[in-house]
Amino acid sequence: MESTPEQRPVPRETRFDADVARYAARARGMVASEIRALFSVANRPEVVSLAGGSPNISGLPLDVVGSLLNDLVLDRGVAAMNYAVAQGYPPLREQILEVMRPVGIEANADDVVVTVGSQQALDLVTRIFCDPGDVVIAEAPSYVGALGVFAAYQCDVVHVAMDDDGLIPDHLDTAIASVIASGRRVKFLYTIPNFQNPTGVSLPQERRHAILEICRKHDVLVVEDDPYGLLGFDGEPNRALRADDPARVVYLGSFSKTFAPGFRVGWALAPHAIRDKLVLAQESATLCPPTFSQHVVSSYLERHDWRGQIKSFREMYRERRDAMLDALDDFMPASMTWTKPGGGFFVWATLPEGLDAKAMSPRAITERVAYVPGTAFYADGYGSQCLRLSYCFPPPERIREGVRRLAAVVEQELELRETFGPMHLGPGRGVESPGPGLT
Amino acid sequence: MESTPEQRPVPRETRFDADVARYAARARGMVASEIRALFSVANRPEVVSLAGGSPNISGLPLDVVGSLLNDLVLDRGVAAMNYAVAQGYPPLREQILEVMRPVGIEANADDVVVTVGSQQALDLVTRIFCDPGDVVIAEAPSYVGALGVFAAYQCDVVHVAMDDDGLIPDHLDTAIASVIASGRRVKFLYTIPNFQNPTGVSLPQERRHAILEICRKHDVLVVEDDPYGLLGFDGEPNRALRADDPARVVYLGSFSKTFAPGFRVGWALAPHAIRDKLVLAQESATLCPPTFSQHVVSSYLERHDWRGQIKSFREMYRERRDAMLDALDDFMPASMTWTKPGGGFFVWATLPEGLDAKAMSPRAITERVAYVPGTAFYADGYGSQCLRLSYCFPPPERIREGVRRLAAVVEQELELRETFGPMHLGPGRGVESPGPGLT
Repeated sequence: MESTPEQRPVPRETRFDADVARYAARARGMVASEIRALFSVANRPEVVSLAGGSPNISGLPLDVVGSLLNDLVLDRGVAAMNYAVAQGYPPLREQILEVMRPVGIEANADDVVVTVGSQQALDLVTRIFCDPGDVVIAEAPSYVGALGVFAAYQCDVVHVAMDDDGLIPDHLDTAIASVIASGRRVKFLYTIPNFQNPTGVSLPQERRHAILEICRKHDVLVVEDDPYGLLGFDGEPNRALRADDPARVVYLGSFSKTFAPGFRVGWALAPHAIRDKLVLAQESATLCPPTFSQHVVSSYLERHDWRGQIKSFREMYRERRDAMLDALDDFMPASMTWTKPGGGFFVWATLPEGLDAKAMSPRAITERVAYVPGTAFYADGYGSQCLRLSYCFPPPERIREGVRRLAAVVEQELELRETFGPMHLGPGRGVESPGPGLT
Repeated sequence: MESTPEQRPVPRETRFDADVARYAARARGMVASEIRALFSVANRPEVVSLAGGSPNISGLPLDVVGSLLNDLVLDRGVAAMNYAVAQGYPPLREQILEVMRPVGIEANADDVVVTVGSQQALDLVTRIFCDPGDVVIAEAPSYVGALGVFAAYQCDVVHVAMDDDGLIPDHLDTAIASVIASGRRVKFLYTIPNFQNPTGVSLPQERRHAILEICRKHDVLVVEDDPYGLLGFDGEPNRALRADDPARVVYLGSFSKTFAPGFRVGWALAPHAIRDKLVLAQESATLCPPTFSQHVVSSYLERHDWRGQIKSFREMYRERRDAMLDALDDFMPASMTWTKPGGGFFVWATLPEGLDAKAMSPRAITERVAYVPGTAFYADGYGSQCLRLSYCFPPPERIREGVRRLAAVVEQELELRETFGPMHLGPGRGVESPGPGLT
């Protein structure tokens, strides 16, 4: 007797879906970020996206890049297209020392490990240090991609409050002491000291010293993530934490914002013993980072005026930052606050009391403007009153238009709140984990 | 009072070295492979290296590649040099379907995830499936880079015996049953069905069916690693396991051997639910695989006769395989055996009884020939009587010279054995885990 459709066994295609027990425990921490869900709508042409963090690289001289690539293939294509050592192309590691010099770092090329963007550097650092349940200390709020890595390795993130000068040293001291007192292991402090993602704020020099002192006292490693360090709008770059404590700091750098992200070339500079472990981890993860990309970046640094290019990127981003701050001043209600970044890509804004950035997001999309709700940047559900506004990608007039649209949405929300009371709120309001920009 | 040098505290630079407790438990599994240690000596010009696995890409038309790169930058450089989606460049994912067609795979581009070489595909698959202590079944011997990944995720590898037709189905059945009976979880079978690394042997079609049937019976996932599938020297490519059971098999592919490894472009083709997890894991590991590399490969596939290029690679490798087999026949003592690969890069040789490949390796280097001792390809210390000989990189006359030198070393070892008895032996002699090439 033939089986009817109802009697047929469940088709095999669905079995791995159904059987979640098959996956590793860590796979439970792998969930789509709030940013990702936004991007399909944010990328529609009619929407002004203040959501993305992609650099604007349209200023790169494509003719120069094209011709140096052609030369690269003809001159040393066979080497540039084959496997190479896991630690990275030695001449590039030397050149990376030059790139780190403006932030005060003196190092040996032997302590540099090239990675698939600095994202992979963070992945490898977490891989070698963190067992499930280990604690990572991070700013509140922090980079969403870092929180994703920590979740994937089943770390517990403990956020430390910031103000307009970044991480607050006293809170850091208390947080570390309290984690240690509870018998848990703090594996490292993860910090973005310059033009932080998502807040745009930077640590002043004296706080850097205080933070290093606290980490020394508690014997905690520092992971210093510095993708925006050379993209400051005023004066000289800030001195890296790594420059003042080479043995305690793993420094992560990237060419994604100073050249182009599509080559996926970043690096970690680490104390020697950690460097060894990172190379082994890299070998196992990829055999070697993309050889060709490394040759491209090396050739670009050698043949192009990369310092001049960064200068022109800085000017372009400064103009966009100004457009955003001016528009915020011009259009936003007085009860809204925001940070004033001195570099980088982001402004962190706090909505008027009683408004919820996540609940407001669909309404903003309807009004053709996108941003990232603040909760994406907290491991603990805080940040619902906040949002990240990026000025890196749209041109100034689009930024102004986007902020104008957003201000209209905020005004509507305020009217609704007047009429119906506060919106739905997340578990935390940023009171216990205050963010910057509230002053 | 000033401290004397002896009284000074240990300098801070050494602390992370000293404090191994700081690292994650998984970092203990990250050790330098036996291959790695060899490479610095094997690369000396006077040494004939039969150790490496790098493809010989000197046949690639550099003028074509150079000009397509130049056009790529000028035509769509801004997109090719920026971030992109974590799953991979959509046109490339479509083209990958074409590349998999010769091995009988029909699939949807939506189930392809682009990775940083197929090494990273294996890393991500292991990441989403394996908790510490989970069991991975692998051929005996197996790919050293896969064993490194499994160690880094703290998996236990259970090897299954092979013969000249690859993995032996009955042994696989017994091994899986016995692991399950002991209460441990088998997460997947890892297999290289075509021209296996390190043995060069391939699974005949009927064994493929038997293996799939066994994995269905025990409900075990199959990870099919197929970097050499299109590099067969005779007839049509073998049909992939994936072609006959799309829901049970994760197929890993690579452009490293059919185009060039330096772009680091590989892929995983996975059942839909697993595909979702892989994309999330990729996002967390790298944000996205190298955009530019993906555009290069896509442009290469579109504009170059890639099938013709693979044909010419095949002819070049066949000539080298022949050179190696002829030299082995001409120079080696009768008590030595080896496999006869029908494609790929490797011959697996078994030394005469009483000889140890690892102990012999320094003497071979002295005689200016390098190979990889068999123990590198076992997670359990077996393989000491065996060695891997690569014919992929040196030209035919160098291969012949290398085998001639190696045969002289083997003859010397045999004389020593006659005089002094057997060499130092590893824990296993390949009796419990027999390898191929013994017949």
